[in-house]
Amino acid sequence: MKKLNIIKIGGNIIDNESDLEAFAHTLASLNEPFILVHGGGKLATDLATDLNIPQKMIDGRRVTDAETLKIATMVYAGYINKNIVALLQKFNRNSIGLSGADANLIPAAKRNSEPIDFGFVGDVTAKNVNTTFLKQLLHIGLTPVICAITHDNEGQLLNTNADSIANAIAVSLSRSFETRLIYCFEKNGVLYQPEDDNSVIPLLDWNMFQVLKNEGIISKGMLPKLENCFQALEQKVGKIGIINAKNISSFINNKTHEGTSIQ
Amino acid sequence: MKKLNIIKIGGNIIDNESDLEAFAHTLASLNEPFILVHGGGKLATDLATDLNIPQKMIDGRRVTDAETLKIATMVYAGYINKNIVALLQKFNRNSIGLSGADANLIPAAKRNSEPIDFGFVGDVTAKNVNTTFLKQLLHIGLTPVICAITHDNEGQLLNTNADSIANAIAVSLSRSFETRLIYCFEKNGVLYQPEDDNSVIPLLDWNMFQVLKNEGIISKGMLPKLENCFQALEQKVGKIGIINAKNISSFINNKTHEGTSIQ
Repeated sequence: MKKLNIIKIGGNIIDNESDLEAFAHTLASLNEPFILVHGGGKLATDLATDLNIPQKMIDGRRVTDAETLKIATMVYAGYINKNIVALLQKFNRNSIGLSGADANLIPAAKRNSEPIDFGFVGDVTAKNVNTTFLKQLLHIGLTPVICAITHDNEGQLLNTNADSIANAIAVSLSRSFETRLIYCFEKNGVLYQPEDDNSVIPLLDWNMFQVLKNEGIISKGMLPKLENCFQALEQKVGKIGIINAKNISSFINNKTHEGTSIQ
Repeated sequence: MKKLNIIKIGGNIIDNESDLEAFAHTLASLNEPFILVHGGGKLATDLATDLNIPQKMIDGRRVTDAETLKIATMVYAGYINKNIVALLQKFNRNSIGLSGADANLIPAAKRNSEPIDFGFVGDVTAKNVNTTFLKQLLHIGLTPVICAITHDNEGQLLNTNADSIANAIAVSLSRSFETRLIYCFEKNGVLYQPEDDNSVIPLLDWNMFQVLKNEGIISKGMLPKLENCFQALEQKVGKIGIINAKNISSFINNKTHEGTSIQ
C-alpha cells in the first residue's frame, strides 16, 4: 500500500507567523503525501476578547454558543486555513483548504446537550469521512488542509476537536493507505515532567499509558489525545507520533527517533 | 457543448439569513450545473466597526490594509463561504467552498500602488483561472462556491472584486461550456431610475449602454459591472443577466423575461 501521513498541527505554531511559515516550508518539501489538520491556537480566543464575547468554559472545555461558533468559523475555516494554503502554495505544494462541510467531507452529529450542553459542538466518526473525495484529491496531487469545522447536514456548522478529526481521517484511510498519524506541537513529545522539555517519553504502549495515567504523570489535555491514539492503533493506523513540529521531517524520514511514538 | 451557469450573489441577500437560505434552496433545485461566486455584503464592514478598525475609502472603494484583509479573509472565506456550503448541503446539493488560493484556483497580481494604493487588493485575468480543477469538480458532481479572496503565489492573500472573479471564471470556461453569467442581487435589474424597482432596463447592448452612460442614467457601481459584462460577451460568454436573486430559477429556465439581459 502507498504511504500517507495525517499531520495535525496545533498550539503555538499556528499563532506565530514565522513559526507557521517555517513549518509550511518543511511540510512543502516532504517527499510523501500528507493531509494536514489544524486547530485554532489562541487566535479565536483573542478575537472573542476583542469583540467582548465572553468565553464559557466547563471542565476546561470551551462552550460553543452561536457567537463563538461564528468566531471559530471565521478564524479556523477562513483566516488560518487560507493562510496555511497560501504558504504551501508559496513553497510549491499545491494544496486545498477544506472544512467538514465542503464536499460533505466530515458530517458530524451535534453533541447531546445532556449531561453538559457544549453548544454547537460536533462529534465525528471515521465511517462518515468522505474518503472517496480525499483519495481523488491526493490522486491529482493536491494536499488537503482541513480545519476543525464540520456540519450536521441540516445547514448547521459545528465546532469540532481537531485531534478527533485527524484521528477519524487516519482511521478511515487506513483501509487504502499505510497511514501514519502525527501530532505536531511546540513541545518535544509526551513528557514525564511537563516543565522539562527534555523529559520525553520515547515509547508509549497501552500498559505504560495505564501506569503513567494512574500515577498522574499523564493528565489533562494529553489524556483524550492519547486515548484517541490507542483507539486509532486498534483500527489499523500504522504508526502514531506526538512530536515537536520542528522534527516533522526527520520523523517522517525515520532518520532519528524524535518525540513520542505510540504503539 | 454542455451548459454551465456562473452565478454571482452579492448585496443584501448575503446579509439576511432567511433570504440566503431561501436562495440556497432555489439554487439547490436547479437542474443545470453552476458555479457560485459570492461577495461579502455588509458583514465585513460590521466586523471592522465592532473591532474599531477604521475603513479607509478612496473614490468609494475600500482600501485593504493588513487588518482589513484579515477581516475579509475571515468573513468571506470563513463565515459566509462555509455557511453557504452548509446550506447547499442541507438541500442536497453537494458543494465545495474555495478561495483563489485553494488548488491555485485563481492566482492574482497585487494591484500597482500607483496612482492609488488600495493595499492588499488583487486583480485577476481569465487566463490564470485553474479551469482543469473546476472541470474535475463539476465532473464529479460538486458545485464550487467561490469567495473573493485570491493569492499572489508568494504566500500573500489578496482581496478581490467578486464581479471580476465571476467574469474571469465565465470567460475561462467558455472554451469548454456554453456559459451563462448571472449577477444576482436584491434589485430587479439595471434600473432607469435607481429608486424605482419597476423601471428595469430589459435589454442592454453596447450602444444603448453608451447612451445611458452619457446621460448619467447608468452610473456609480453599475458602470464597472457592466463594462465587465461587455468584455465577457466579447470573450464568448453566451448570455449575461443582471437579475433579482428571487428570479434565478425562471431566468435559468427561460420561463419569463426577468431582469436585464446584456447582449
